[in-house]
Amino acid sequence: MMKMKCNRRDLTEAVSLVEKAVPVATPISVLEGIFIEAKENAFKLVGNNMDLGIECFIPADVEEKGLAMVRASLFSQAIKKLPDTDDDVFMEIDEKDNLKIECGHAKFNFSTSSAEEFPQLSQVLDGKTFEMKESLIKNMIKQTVYAVSTREEKPVLTGVLFDVEQNIINVVGCDGFRVAIRKEEIENSQNLKFILPGKNAKELLGILGETDQLVKISVNDNNVKFVTDRCIMVSRIIDGEYLNYKSVANHKNTLEFVVERRKILNSIDRAATIVNEASKSHVLLDIDETSVSIDCESVMGKVKDKFSIDMQGEPMQIAFNPKYLIEAFKNIDDDKIKLSFSTPVTPAVIRPLEGEKYVYIILPVRIK
Amino acid sequence: MMKMKCNRRDLTEAVSLVEKAVPVATPISVLEGIFIEAKENAFKLVGNNMDLGIECFIPADVEEKGLAMVRASLFSQAIKKLPDTDDDVFMEIDEKDNLKIECGHAKFNFSTSSAEEFPQLSQVLDGKTFEMKESLIKNMIKQTVYAVSTREEKPVLTGVLFDVEQNIINVVGCDGFRVAIRKEEIENSQNLKFILPGKNAKELLGILGETDQLVKISVNDNNVKFVTDRCIMVSRIIDGEYLNYKSVANHKNTLEFVVERRKILNSIDRAATIVNEASKSHVLLDIDETSVSIDCESVMGKVKDKFSIDMQGEPMQIAFNPKYLIEAFKNIDDDKIKLSFSTPVTPAVIRPLEGEKYVYIILPVRIK
Repeated sequence: MMKMKCNRRDLTEAVSLVEKAVPVATPISVLEGIFIEAKENAFKLVGNNMDLGIECFIPADVEEKGLAMVRASLFSQAIKKLPDTDDDVFMEIDEKDNLKIECGHAKFNFSTSSAEEFPQLSQVLDGKTFEMKESLIKNMIKQTVYAVSTREEKPVLTGVLFDVEQNIINVVGCDGFRVAIRKEEIENSQNLKFILPGKNAKELLGILGETDQLVKISVNDNNVKFVTDRCIMVSRIIDGEYLNYKSVANHKNTLEFVVERRKILNSIDRAATIVNEASKSHVLLDIDETSVSIDCESVMGKVKDKFSIDMQGEPMQIAFNPKYLIEAFKNIDDDKIKLSFSTPVTPAVIRPLEGEKYVYIILPVRIK
Repeated sequence: MMKMKCNRRDLTEAVSLVEKAVPVATPISVLEGIFIEAKENAFKLVGNNMDLGIECFIPADVEEKGLAMVRASLFSQAIKKLPDTDDDVFMEIDEKDNLKIECGHAKFNFSTSSAEEFPQLSQVLDGKTFEMKESLIKNMIKQTVYAVSTREEKPVLTGVLFDVEQNIINVVGCDGFRVAIRKEEIENSQNLKFILPGKNAKELLGILGETDQLVKISVNDNNVKFVTDRCIMVSRIIDGEYLNYKSVANHKNTLEFVVERRKILNSIDRAATIVNEASKSHVLLDIDETSVSIDCESVMGKVKDKFSIDMQGEPMQIAFNPKYLIEAFKNIDDDKIKLSFSTPVTPAVIRPLEGEKYVYIILPVRIK
């Protein structure tokens, strides 16, 4: 039994958020549902695929408390198709467990199932806690998660590392061929580390907004919890020791150049036209005092290109898998970037002109 | 051998057009290519999947004439990735049949193959010819092709009928359960009829622009040719007798109502939430003097809705497959539409408030 009303826009937004944690098709049918509960002055919705769970609360005018589980796709479609008016949405569950949804002239009637077996979000007890702006977490994930490994051999590399030391946070993605590091200062006085699964990190990008509101992040040995003003997300964390990413780029620079990001991105992208998984080709950068010449050759053909740079150090020839360069350049916002090299067999490093807000490290391909 | 230069934007646009006729994967490898030819002052490109062929000409500065066939995907990617400058594109085929493409600092080098076996566009000789504005053909196809059948049992119904009688053209799509008719006046003095395959009609939507420029359409027993100022498209036509679409809506009206298109679309769409292929449910319209009540029931649940109308005639209950109503309403631009009914077992007709620019006829579902 349940009887309540709430704002249509609040409800639509809450459904959109929690359904991101509902698996599309699963052998465990209870997970395809959305848990709903009318509590004192609030309506609660939960989606949980056991790897990631999302819970939302919205204000509600509750006449009779109650809870149930509804079919996620049906409930979500019905709510999204409600008339676009300012009318409130009435919801009622009768003694036969039928859910009635009413808004204006539109009336839906669905059966519900027992909510008893629905897995509620893990509690994340005894954890450490820190806070960050919503938009900042979103940006740091976006600029590192692309570099995460999709191969399961090294599970830790399929996740994004959150490494907090006092007031410095590093967020890191790495697949063994490249490392993407994003660094920021936050208000915090303790140390903590956790690895968020890459898949869930990508879902978080869709859930987190662009606001300056603080998100509370709590971590224990098994789970991490993100609490925004709109919802709670709990994700499993990946167990294991992450690689020592700070020592990867410790080589002495012998060559450094500044270049327009668009220019180098377009040149490498052009060369990549003739590189695919099968051809396993690389792109050769011939760096001299004023320009970089690009050379790429595969069974499909040849591509040459050239762009001007602002260089310091010794000329060098160095080769890369173009995919790693392209993905790094695409995930940077700056117009100009700085590339540093040590030898043709040590990693290249991409940084901002000033500081180390991001550090992208890319292994070269050895050439004869 | 070939040596020429042309404008980069012209070339990019031409490649985008002809590649729509290149099949993605085909057992006949020659069809995966684009035919290129440098002629007197012009560069010609052709894509042809034998069902639909597209040919473009662009102005070119030709030093040495020549022709070849290039791999469609490689050529198209290379052209689209050329530097975004005002520089001309140079193309040259050397004595080893390698194609060199140069624009600014970017240089591509691909092998080509013999163009001998490439199938040129059919000539469409001895055909009848008429002319129409580009944007009008596009609009008429868009508003009828959605109703075409996707089932191969009746091949004529998988195509869009073009029926020209003197200065009246009707474009018609029909799948046996609904008919979509678009009617316009054009300047023409002869009669002709042809059925354009639905698949090619959809490709034409992407090729035709929104301009008022005239397109010359020529038809013979096998093919139809559309000639715009930019290119030539030749499509196979479907053989067979089309149904007599003009007699389908000849019933006497007993009920007629005017309604806001958005209102009825949203109501029916809401009801369709609980209708899928498996449930085979229908939506029941209970039409009275001032409003339509919507009722829909399936194993998934129940939906009710209601909207106001401006009605003349006798009240009626009539049921439909919601999909046919929704697709018709979505393809109309008008804010208000007129629906006419005769009996609960004869087709309903959707028309503009004035005239018969479009006539959408939909068979009802028989209810007990």
